[in-house]
Amino acid sequence: MTVAARLAAHPAPAPHADLLAAAVEAALDCSQACTACADACLSEADVEDMRRCVSTDLTCADVCAATARVLSRQSAPLEDVARALLVACVAACSACGDECAQHAGHHEHCRLCAEACRRCADACRALLEVLA
Amino acid sequence: MTVAARLAAHPAPAPHADLLAAAVEAALDCSQACTACADACLSEADVEDMRRCVSTDLTCADVCAATARVLSRQSAPLEDVARALLVACVAACSACGDECAQHAGHHEHCRLCAEACRRCADACRALLEVLA
Amino acid sequence: MTVAARLAAHPAPAPHADLLAAAVEAALDCSQACTACADACLSEADVEDMRRCVSTDLTCADVCAATARVLSRQSAPLEDVARALLVACVAACSACGDECAQHAGHHEHCRLCAEACRRCADACRALLEVLA
Amino acid sequence: MTVAARLAAHPAPAPHADLLAAAVEAALDCSQACTACADACLSEADVEDMRRCVSTDLTCADVCAATARVLSRQSAPLEDVARALLVACVAACSACGDECAQHAGHHEHCRLCAEACRRCADACRALLEVLA
Repeated sequence: MTVAARLAAHPAPAPHADLLAAAVEAALDCSQACTACADACLSEADVEDMRRCVSTDLTCADVCAATARVLSRQSAPLEDVARALLVACVAACSACGDECAQHAGHHEHCRLCAEACRRCADACRALLEVLA
Repeated sequence: MTVAARLAAHPAPAPHADLLAAAVEAALDCSQACTACADACLSEADVEDMRRCVSTDLTCADVCAATARVLSRQSAPLEDVARALLVACVAACSACGDECAQHAGHHEHCRLCAEACRRCADACRALLEVLA
Repeated sequence: MTVAARLAAHPAPAPHADLLAAAVEAALDCSQACTACADACLSEADVEDMRRCVSTDLTCADVCAATARVLSRQSAPLEDVARALLVACVAACSACGDECAQHAGHHEHCRLCAEACRRCADACRALLEVLA
Repeated sequence: MTVAARLAAHPAPAPHADLLAAAVEAALDCSQACTACADACLSEADVEDMRRCVSTDLTCADVCAATARVLSRQSAPLEDVARALLVACVAACSACGDECAQHAGHHEHCRLCAEACRRCADACRALLEVLA
C-alpha cells in the first residue's frame, strides 16, 4: 500500500506498478527475515548444522536488498539489469527458502524466513513474466 | 508484527523487543521511501531545486538500511555501535524529513517521504531512550 | 592483493580464486566510483542533462555492492545466484559506463566512473566465463 | 589515490579531502575484510567459538559500507550525520578488531580482518578530529 503509493507518486510511473510494488515490498521484507534468521542461527545450540543456513541467509539478504533498491527506481530504468537481478533474487530466495524449510520444524525463525523467501520468489517471478 | 515475530524467535531475544522491532520496521520503510523519493525528484521538471532533496534522500536511505540490519541482530549486540547508529539515523531522518517537508505541497513523493522520516526518527528516539 | 589474501585464507577456498578476487575488487571500486559520480553530477550546473547519469550510477552502485558481497563468500556458494548477479553487474556496468562515457569530455568524475565500470564489466565477464 | 581523484573531481569538493578519501578507502576495504572473515569463520572447525566473531564482522561490514557511501557524497553534506556515523564506525571497528585479534594466531582471515579494522578506526578517528 505505502510502497505502491510512493511508486505512483513518480512523475512518470513505470507500467505494472502493482507488480513492481509487490516485488519491492517482498524483497525488503525477505531481506529483513534473512538477516534476522542468520543472526538467530548463530545463537542456536546446533550452530554447526546451521552453517549453510547462515550463509544462504546472508547472500539472500544482500540480493533482496539490492533488488528492492533497484526496483524502487523508475527514472531511466535498465530493463536488462532488472531482469538479471530478478533472476538472481528468485535463485537466492529458492535456495534460502529450501534450506530454511529443512529447519522449520525446530527453528521458528527458519520457518518465518522460508515463508518470506517463498513470497519474495513468487513476487519476483510474477514481475519477471511481464518484463520478459 | 512480522519483524517482531522474527526477533522473538531468536534463542535469546534482546530486551525492549517491541521498540527494537518498531525501529527496524520504520528504518526499512524509510529507506525505501527515500530511495523512491530521490528517484522521483530526479524526474521532476524542477530538478534544479531538488538537488539537496536527492542528496539527503540518498544519505538517509543508506543510514536507515544499515540501522535496520544492525538492529535486526541480537547475537553479541554492540550497544555503543547501536546507539551511535541510532543517533546518525535520527539526524539523517530529521534533515531529510525537513527537506522533504519543504516540497510536500507540490511533490507527493516528498510528502510521503517526510512522513516516513518522521516515523523513523520517532522510533529511533524511543529506542535510544531505553538504551541510554 | 589484499582481497586475494583474504579469500585464500578461507578454510576451503573456491576455485578460480584470482578471478574471484579481481571481480570483488573491481566491483567494490566501481560501487564507490558510481556513488561519487552520482553525487558530483547532482552538483553540476547542467544537472538537467545528468539525470540519466545519476540514475544509472545509483543502480550500478547497488548492483556492484551486492556483487562484491556475494562473491566474497565461499562457504556454501550458490553458483546460479552468482552467475545471475554477474550478468546483472555486467549489464549495469555496461549501461553506466556508456552513459558516463558520453560526459567524460566535460566531467572528470564521469571519465573516472566510466573507467571503473569498464574494469568491473571486464572482471565480471572473465569470472562468468569460468563459472558457466 | 583513485578515491581521492574521484572526490577531487566534484564541482565543489569538501575540505579535508585527503582525510575523507582515506576514510572512504579504509571503510570500503574493512567492509570487504569483515564480509570475507564472517564467511571464513562459518567454515572453520571451531565455528562454535567463532559465533561472536561472525556477528561483529557482519555488523562492522554494514556500518563500514554505509560510512563509505555517505562519506563519498560531498553535495549538501550532513555533518552531524557524518560525525555520528564515524563514531559508530570507530566503535564497530574497535569491537570487531578486538574480537578478531583474539583469533589472529590460528585464523589468518581474522588477522587480516583485525588489521583492516584498525586501519579503518584510525582513518575515521583522524577525520572525526577535523570535523568536530
